[in-house]
Amino acid sequence: MKAIIQRVTKATVTVGEEQVSSIGRGLCVLLGISVEDTQKDADYLVRKILNLRLFEDENGRAWSKSVMDRDFEVLCVSQFTLQCILKGNKPDFHSAMPAELAQPFYNSILESMRSSYKPELIKDGEFGAYMQVTIQNDGPVTVELSSPSGPTDPKQLSKQEKQQQRKEKTRSKGPSESSREKGAQRSRQDPNASSGAEGDVSSEREP
Amino acid sequence: MKAIIQRVTKATVTVGEEQVSSIGRGLCVLLGISVEDTQKDADYLVRKILNLRLFEDENGRAWSKSVMDRDFEVLCVSQFTLQCILKGNKPDFHSAMPAELAQPFYNSILESMRSSYKPELIKDGEFGAYMQVTIQNDGPVTVELSSPSGPTDPKQLSKQEKQQQRKEKTRSKGPSESSREKGAQRSRQDPNASSGAEGDVSSEREP
Repeated sequence: MKAIIQRVTKATVTVGEEQVSSIGRGLCVLLGISVEDTQKDADYLVRKILNLRLFEDENGRAWSKSVMDRDFEVLCVSQFTLQCILKGNKPDFHSAMPAELAQPFYNSILESMRSSYKPELIKDGEFGAYMQVTIQNDGPVTVELSSPSGPTDPKQLSKQEKQQQRKEKTRSKGPSESSREKGAQRSRQDPNASSGAEGDVSSEREP
Repeated sequence: MKAIIQRVTKATVTVGEEQVSSIGRGLCVLLGISVEDTQKDADYLVRKILNLRLFEDENGRAWSKSVMDRDFEVLCVSQFTLQCILKGNKPDFHSAMPAELAQPFYNSILESMRSSYKPELIKDGEFGAYMQVTIQNDGPVTVELSSPSGPTDPKQLSKQEKQQQRKEKTRSKGPSESSREKGAQRSRQDPNASSGAEGDVSSEREP
C-alpha cells in the first residue's frame, strides 16, 4: 500500500460540477492499494498518516505536531494509479487491487481512520469516480509512504522503524475488525486478483 | 531521486501574495533529490516524466499519450521532503541533498527538460521558498517514480524496464552536460553532504 501525503492549506474534490468534499488545513492523502495488501498494511498506514509530524507547534517549530495534535482534517482519496508498473513508458495497473475488492477495503481504512481520530475530520472522495482533486499543497510538503509488506523501500523501514511499529499504537478505539479483515482476506484468496482478467485492472483502467 | 507526478487540469505556484508560476493541462512534478543522486538519476527521471503515457489520445483511449505528445505543460517544483526517513513519527531529511548542492543540480534538471521538449512549456516554482502549490489533480492520476539508483522499488525496475532504459532515448537535443555533471559530482564528493552539519538538512529544515 502506498500513500502520497500532501500537507494542505485546503483541498476539495469535485465530480462534474458538484463539489463532493472539502477540507481546510490538514492532509490530502492519495491511497493506492495493491493486490497483496492486507489489514497489516492498512493499520500501518493509518497509524503513520495520523501520527506523522508534518506541522509546526504553537511556537512555529517545524515538524513537531501531527494532524491529530493540531485538530486538522484529512481528505483521503483512493488512487489506484500509485500501484503502477512501467512497461517502457506505458503504465500498467495489474498490481492494483481490483475495484470490487479495493472499495470495501478502502472503506474499512476510512472507518479505521475515523475511529482512531475524530470521524467528522476525515473526509473522502468518491470511489471510482472521475474527480478533480484540488490540492493546495502548503510548503510544499509531500511525503510518500509505503506499508511494510508493500514494495520495499529499505530507507523507510529501518531497524528502528520496525521496533517503533511494535511499540507504538494509534489511539484506536477498536473499530469493527470483521469487515476490514474480510476485504484483506478476499484479496489474498481471490485467484483472479492479479490475473488481469478484469478490464479494470488492465492499463485501460480509468481513474 | 523521487518524483511525484500528478496529471493536472491546471496548477499554480504562489509565494506570499504573488503567483510566480502557472500551467494549464499537463503534469505537476514534485522532485526530491537525495544526497546519492547523480546525473544518471536525473536523466532517467527527465526521460520518464516527458514520455510517460498518462493522457488519452484524440479518440479518448486512456494511457496513450505523453505530455510531449499532447503539447501539454510541466510544472516542476523541488520537494526535499520526499527524501524523508521516518524516525518513529518524526520526518528526518538528512537523505535530501543539501540546498546549496541541490539548487544547481535541480536547475540543470529543468534545463535538461527544456532542451528535451519545448522550453516555454516547462515551468518552475521558486527553489527554497515557502510556496502554496495549487494542484488540480485530474482523475486523480498520480504516479510515483524513483530513479534506478535511488531507493529500490523492485516493482518499478523489472528486467524489462532495465532493457527499456538501454533502448529508449528522449528527444534530447544534447543540453550542456558540464553544469549538470558538476552538480552531481559535487554531491558525490562533498564529505559533508550527508553529515547533517548544515541546519537545512536536519529535520528542522523548512519547506
